[in-house]
Amino acid sequence: MKIIIVGATGTIGKHITEALQKDNELIKAGSKSGDLQVDISSPESIENLYKQAGKFDALVCASGDGHFGPLGSMKDADFRIGVNSKLMGQVNLVLIGQHYINPKGSFTLTSGSLAEDPIVLGANLSAMNGAINGFVRGAAVELENNVRINAVAPDVVEESPAYFPYFHGHIPVSMHRVTQAYLKSVLGSQTGQVYKVL
Amino acid sequence: MKIIIVGATGTIGKHITEALQKDNELIKAGSKSGDLQVDISSPESIENLYKQAGKFDALVCASGDGHFGPLGSMKDADFRIGVNSKLMGQVNLVLIGQHYINPKGSFTLTSGSLAEDPIVLGANLSAMNGAINGFVRGAAVELENNVRINAVAPDVVEESPAYFPYFHGHIPVSMHRVTQAYLKSVLGSQTGQVYKVL
Repeated sequence: MKIIIVGATGTIGKHITEALQKDNELIKAGSKSGDLQVDISSPESIENLYKQAGKFDALVCASGDGHFGPLGSMKDADFRIGVNSKLMGQVNLVLIGQHYINPKGSFTLTSGSLAEDPIVLGANLSAMNGAINGFVRGAAVELENNVRINAVAPDVVEESPAYFPYFHGHIPVSMHRVTQAYLKSVLGSQTGQVYKVL
Repeated sequence: MKIIIVGATGTIGKHITEALQKDNELIKAGSKSGDLQVDISSPESIENLYKQAGKFDALVCASGDGHFGPLGSMKDADFRIGVNSKLMGQVNLVLIGQHYINPKGSFTLTSGSLAEDPIVLGANLSAMNGAINGFVRGAAVELENNVRINAVAPDVVEESPAYFPYFHGHIPVSMHRVTQAYLKSVLGSQTGQVYKVL
C-alpha cells in the first residue's frame, strides 16, 4: 500500500512509521521534515501535498495542535488554535483527500481521551477530540468507493512525560498499544470507529 | 432567576421560554427578534449582549447554524459555517459569559444526536455536536464559583418536519421531552453532562 503519514516524525507518528515501513510505500509528511512538507492549517498546502503525493491508499494523521490552557482566561483566538489545526487540519485532509484516495482506501485521524475524560486546562482539546470523533462517524456514512475512516483516541502516551503532571491518576498508554490502534484502522476493515486507547 | 435565552423564538427556544417565563426573569436574545439582539458568530456582539444584560443566573443557547450538505462537495468554507456559528458561537457565549454569570449559575448549550448517530449530509453537524459535548465536559471541570455547564443533545424534533426525510428510521422527539432536558440542566444540579433526548 501507498500510505501518507502526516506527522511522521512526531511522538506517535514515528512509531506508526516504523510499524508500516517494512511492507508499504510510505510518504512521510511533516511541517518541516519528511518527504513532503505540509501545513495542515492551510487547505492550499494540503491540496499541494496530495498533488505531489499522487493517488494513495491510506492517510494517517498523527498531527494537529490544540490550545492547552486555563478556561478562565481563554479567548476566541486561543480556542481557534485547535480549530484551525487539530480540527480543520484533519477535516481538510479528508475533504480534499477524498478526491485523491484510491477505492478501498482509508483515512485515520487522531483525537484523544479528553473528549470524554476531561482535565483542567484541556477544554479546547476536549472539544477538538469530540469534533474529530463526530466527524469520523459522519464522514464514514458518506465516503464513496468503499473508502473508510476511523479515529484513534489515545490517553496520554508513555513517551510524553511532560504531560503526566496534568493527567492525574491516568496510566500512560504504551506506544505499542497506540500504534496497534492505528494499524487496526489502516490494515483492518472497519469504518466510522473511534479506537480508544486507555 | 435571571435567565438569558439565545434563540428564544426558535423551534426549541420558544418552548424553553414558555416553560421558564412564569417563574423567572427572562431576557430573550435573538439574531433579529427578542429583547436583545446578538450575532453569536461575533465575540464582540456576545460581549455587547452580556454588557446589556448585566449579571445573570443562567444562559441557555438554542441557536447555532451548521452546514447540512454532501461530504463529496464539502469545502473548508462550508465546514466553517458550523465552526463559526454552532461551535464558536456557543463556546464564546461561555468563554465571555463566565465573567458575567453569577455564582451557582449555569450554561446550557445545544448539541444533537448526530454526534453519535450520523446521517448522510450531516458530517459537519456530527462534528459540531461532538465538539460541544467535549467542550461541556472540559469546561465543567474548570468553571469557578460553582457555575455549571451541560449540553442538550436532541434527535430530530417533532416540530421540524422538513428534516424528517433525512432522518430515516428516527422517531422525532416531542418538544415536551426536549424542553424537560433544558429544565433539568437549568434548574437541576448536575454539571458536565450531555442530556441525550432520543
